Amino acid sequence: MGRWEADAQGRLRQAALELFTQRGFEQTTVADIAERAGVTERTFFRYFADKREVLFDGSSALQKAVVEAIAASGTSRPPLATVVAAVASASPIFEERREFSRLRAAAIAADTSLMERELLKLATLATAAAEALRATGVPEPAASLAAQSGITVFRVGFERWIADDSGGSLAQHLHDALAELKALS
Amino acid sequence: MGRWEADAQGRLRQAALELFTQRGFEQTTVADIAERAGVTERTFFRYFADKREVLFDGSSALQKAVVEAIAASGTSRPPLATVVAAVASASPIFEERREFSRLRAAAIAADTSLMERELLKLATLATAAAEALRATGVPEPAASLAAQSGITVFRVGFERWIADDSGGSLAQHLHDALAELKALS
Repeated sequence: MGRWEADAQGRLRQAALELFTQRGFEQTTVADIAERAGVTERTFFRYFADKREVLFDGSSALQKAVVEAIAASGTSRPPLATVVAAVASASPIFEERREFSRLRAAAIAADTSLMERELLKLATLATAAAEALRATGVPEPAASLAAQSGITVFRVGFERWIADDSGGSLAQHLHDALAELKALS
Repeated sequence: MGRWEADAQGRLRQAALELFTQRGFEQTTVADIAERAGVTERTFFRYFADKREVLFDGSSALQKAVVEAIAASGTSRPPLATVVAAVASASPIFEERREFSRLRAAAIAADTSLMERELLKLATLATAAAEALRATGVPEPAASLAAQSGITVFRVGFERWIADDSGGSLAQHLHDALAELKALS
């Protein structure tokens, strides 16, 4: 398998995002995406269940990384800091493709159905993080509060990171957002 | 207008929730709901845009109450406490119909599209609360962090309130969840 073929998934992702940005999500078809990526529709469906999933295929990897980091963290840190550290440990996934993250966020903000899906994925991530915390012995409601607040820190830190053109890292923005949240409480 | 007719909206809401609980949301039609409430479909559409909205028609009143309470609060309290106090000030809306709230939560948990809508409404509420905080002089990212964390306290406190058969009030559960979150930070 040549390199061109091997990276069909990456090209499909890029093509989809360009089209969503230019035409809007509703106005873009799977056929349009496949054509721009130079592959067939059949190839598209080998990688993605539907056009919405192009923007969300990283979420299970993120969830796995966060859950594993919480499980590995033991009980050395307070639960909220544990969740934020777990998300920060996954930040290289995003750092590698900041421009993609930026365009993706803009596409999601422009379409209600994408926003609903994004919120559901984040809520699912919070539920999984709460379960991982409970498995380390954190009781309820502390586990749910820490998990959901950790995802809030992720959302706010992420938003500031993609808006920051001075080169600040995602990990630093997460750290700052956590410090701000602590100062509020 | 007789009392029966005047309360068509309440009967439609009740009928919808019973049917969603018994048959599931997907399997229930507007015609089923109207029939059980003893009104025509046309009457249904006088009150609700679609069957999903039956469960969400209170959200704009909640948002209005929360935004007004934040605006009226001035800057006497820290922003997170301001948001939770604003939500608590709206708690009589829910206290009056705890059984409805309980069944509504179960129906939402059982259907992904309802869950997505619920999360979108809560995110919209958080965005409105953040804007109200900024109007009182709270800067970013504190405003967004306080608003989203306040909604987290609402979600966790609400869940515990509907699971609590010992008669604890929603306001008390919100207070407890806020105290727990502060202890985590």
